[in-house]
Amino acid sequence: MSIIDKYTTTFGLVKKIDAFGYLDYLKQNPDQPRKHGKVLLVTADTPLKASRGEGKTTTTIALVDALRERGVDAAAVLRQPSMGITAAGSKGGASGGGKSSLSHPELIDWGLCGEMAAIACAQNLLVSFAEKAVDEGVLDTILVPRVSEVPSRSLRSIAVDYGKGTVPERVVLTPTCELMQIVVLSRSMDEISERVASMIAGTKDGVPRKFGDFVDLWRITNILSDAVKPAKTETINGSPIYVHCGPFANVSLGIPSLVSVEMACAEHDVVVVEAGYGTDAGAQKWLDIASREFGAAWPAAAVVVTRATTWRDDETLAWRYPFHVSRLESLNIPTFPLINLWEGEDDQVPELLAQAKSLGFRKPIVGNLFRDGGDGLADQLDDFVSVISEDTKAYAPESRRGNTLMNRIKLLCEEAYGVPADRVIEKDGFADSLTAAQDLCANAGVDFNSLALVAVKSPATMTDDDHKPAGERTVTLKKVEVHAGAGVVQVNLTASLTTPMPKIV
Amino acid sequence: MSIIDKYTTTFGLVKKIDAFGYLDYLKQNPDQPRKHGKVLLVTADTPLKASRGEGKTTTTIALVDALRERGVDAAAVLRQPSMGITAAGSKGGASGGGKSSLSHPELIDWGLCGEMAAIACAQNLLVSFAEKAVDEGVLDTILVPRVSEVPSRSLRSIAVDYGKGTVPERVVLTPTCELMQIVVLSRSMDEISERVASMIAGTKDGVPRKFGDFVDLWRITNILSDAVKPAKTETINGSPIYVHCGPFANVSLGIPSLVSVEMACAEHDVVVVEAGYGTDAGAQKWLDIASREFGAAWPAAAVVVTRATTWRDDETLAWRYPFHVSRLESLNIPTFPLINLWEGEDDQVPELLAQAKSLGFRKPIVGNLFRDGGDGLADQLDDFVSVISEDTKAYAPESRRGNTLMNRIKLLCEEAYGVPADRVIEKDGFADSLTAAQDLCANAGVDFNSLALVAVKSPATMTDDDHKPAGERTVTLKKVEVHAGAGVVQVNLTASLTTPMPKIV
Repeated sequence: MSIIDKYTTTFGLVKKIDAFGYLDYLKQNPDQPRKHGKVLLVTADTPLKASRGEGKTTTTIALVDALRERGVDAAAVLRQPSMGITAAGSKGGASGGGKSSLSHPELIDWGLCGEMAAIACAQNLLVSFAEKAVDEGVLDTILVPRVSEVPSRSLRSIAVDYGKGTVPERVVLTPTCELMQIVVLSRSMDEISERVASMIAGTKDGVPRKFGDFVDLWRITNILSDAVKPAKTETINGSPIYVHCGPFANVSLGIPSLVSVEMACAEHDVVVVEAGYGTDAGAQKWLDIASREFGAAWPAAAVVVTRATTWRDDETLAWRYPFHVSRLESLNIPTFPLINLWEGEDDQVPELLAQAKSLGFRKPIVGNLFRDGGDGLADQLDDFVSVISEDTKAYAPESRRGNTLMNRIKLLCEEAYGVPADRVIEKDGFADSLTAAQDLCANAGVDFNSLALVAVKSPATMTDDDHKPAGERTVTLKKVEVHAGAGVVQVNLTASLTTPMPKIV
Repeated sequence: MSIIDKYTTTFGLVKKIDAFGYLDYLKQNPDQPRKHGKVLLVTADTPLKASRGEGKTTTTIALVDALRERGVDAAAVLRQPSMGITAAGSKGGASGGGKSSLSHPELIDWGLCGEMAAIACAQNLLVSFAEKAVDEGVLDTILVPRVSEVPSRSLRSIAVDYGKGTVPERVVLTPTCELMQIVVLSRSMDEISERVASMIAGTKDGVPRKFGDFVDLWRITNILSDAVKPAKTETINGSPIYVHCGPFANVSLGIPSLVSVEMACAEHDVVVVEAGYGTDAGAQKWLDIASREFGAAWPAAAVVVTRATTWRDDETLAWRYPFHVSRLESLNIPTFPLINLWEGEDDQVPELLAQAKSLGFRKPIVGNLFRDGGDGLADQLDDFVSVISEDTKAYAPESRRGNTLMNRIKLLCEEAYGVPADRVIEKDGFADSLTAAQDLCANAGVDFNSLALVAVKSPATMTDDDHKPAGERTVTLKKVEVHAGAGVVQVNLTASLTTPMPKIV
């Protein structure tokens, strides 16, 4: 029995692992056998629309299968897809497809072991306690939104206590809520408690009040007791896959829980992490939030997935894919283009390879991953395996906490979207929103500049209009929102959705 | 490996059993070994208030432990408590206490394996699909309420699509929703599909439309795939306990799922079923709904729990306990009074026994179950074991479907609350509500008189004023609501809560 088995329990067809307990044990017992796996980031081209993925999960699964076929001890960590969105038909599940599939995708697609529902419940309970605080005169305004697990058009705008107080309110989807971020970022139940206690519940006479002032935190942590445990499942080829937490990549953190990746790194030599949506979203967030501000491993290599059609069919958007590849290479992350072919596209391979060569890319990995799975990739991974086998020193990027938010936003726009500081525009109301957020933090005793920056944006666009020539592209700043418990400040950019409540289809 | 093991999977510290599959196997294989256990009903005196239980779950646990101590193969089936209510502090968990406890009460109290959350999600998804149907012109009015897992004061009255359509809406707790009733009453996933398809989603130009007309039912059944499986856990003494579904007893069915009880009866000789709140609520519903209309087993015996203080301290309410005991005996159910003592009440035993004797009760079972557990009961169970060991023919009560609703309501008031037909009062608006419900059913092709009657009432009162003398007590009928999918018609009586959304405490 290996050490991790003592922290593992069976939940139906998956295992759940007490990652907090296991990682704490390893910390207390540094002489115990463990691995120090490298993180490989699978990210993608910016998709043409939110509901059309490039195939990141499919690639992640195929890649792990292919690496294991080559004898590499690889595993992958996936985010849990939003059950509500899947059930609503707004998009497919995010569990791969065809020969690049999980053995039980239905588990991942349909709520796993209730993790997301528990997080939704816990945040809704916080709102209920805030209401009680209003009744008792402790609060007069609630600042935490209610959470819904399923999307619903009419929840975009609601009023509660209708006919009496008639209080307009926000309802957000579970993958966007602050408590989801807290579970993603926390490394212990105590840390979750502390972060929940630090969440700003609302205000009383304009003065912020935190949940720690009036909530029994054990009620929240009890609800979360199983939700904090990553799930372990496998691909149809038996490769290990961990699944934990599902913050959206466009409007939240876009990464699986930090502990799920750390746990996987203690068990495997190579851990493929899927970072949601395009390089401008999930990858940016892994690098700048998880690695830079919260101590997650810097990737030893990256794969940037695209579909031939996304890359090429709209000439005015064709700049995005090379931009992403170059950006990651410029950060000294060896970056492998991967072209995920669809049926009928096999004959395009020579042309795609030539195009990649002309752009100075590393040789692309090309395959129809749905049809051929990891078998189609294994032979192409020589360079990739060689890169990840190098004995490189772990790179730890410097934190940007302490710099002003505006400076950090401008840096982000330049680095991740290619828009220089002088084309970052402040929309009417942005300055007020920024001042309000700064004041809120000042009154709550929170150091505003210590909060990590989370960009809230459309998944399908990097700038106000990606079709414009490079020299004319702009980014418009719209709104600032503080999640003091999670330790992040969210800035809405360009075409962000303020209430991400997709259509039922 | 026994047959049921093939239908059993481990979920953390509990087992989950595919009861649908197991019972279907037994039906297809009548020669396979199985038991035909008897059902014992544990019910109670009407409590003084909703948040003050008499100790039914504590009794159920102690009774099973005591029966097993005596060599009887007994098990119990409990409803799952509402996590939201427990987490909100509105009441304690319903998992016993002290020496009459489950081995892991925290699991039951804090959401088990997400069953309730899945049911909430699924009903909310139905509402979302109904909204889509409104957008597409298929519906113009939605009749199914949204569900919340946690109570929240301000959800008592909400408006959605606020500022545009501004549609007033209802939000109910998971344990009160129609989908919970459907899961409780269904014996297969196909039956769940059919019942969901039969739910009246809303109306279009006044004509009812059912979910079967426009919803992909597989989305709903996928969400419910694990929620339909009863959980198995145990008492601290190792006695088997099944837990499944949690409809409130005052405003819904008050019973665990039918399949959970049937499965337990196939495995054990004696199955103790806890029926929620007083005899006027949970027991009435087991007898008149589960047994009479849905084929559940008629109890071979009953235990009616009271606390000494509930029974005696308010003289004007002291009639209720003997009423309950006599009512069950009059149905030929051998009924054992059980007095659950609290600390400091041991010296009252002789007086309580004398009082019971003077009322013609069977000899009461008396114990401090929190302090002493099943050990305190085992010696007192001679009569009880003798009764349940008798080889009696299973009684199948006659269905009352087909009779008019008014006739059935009057019969219920007489039998369960002791109020004759001429003191059943119709509140202003009741007749209109009844007519509207009848019209809705007529237009939907539903036989109104075939729907099983569910009384919706306060848990703490049987009549409009239980303090009045017997000859002056009345019951007021307030409202009628159809749950066509569940196959029930709900009638609000006396002090019912129209939106059961308890206080956060």
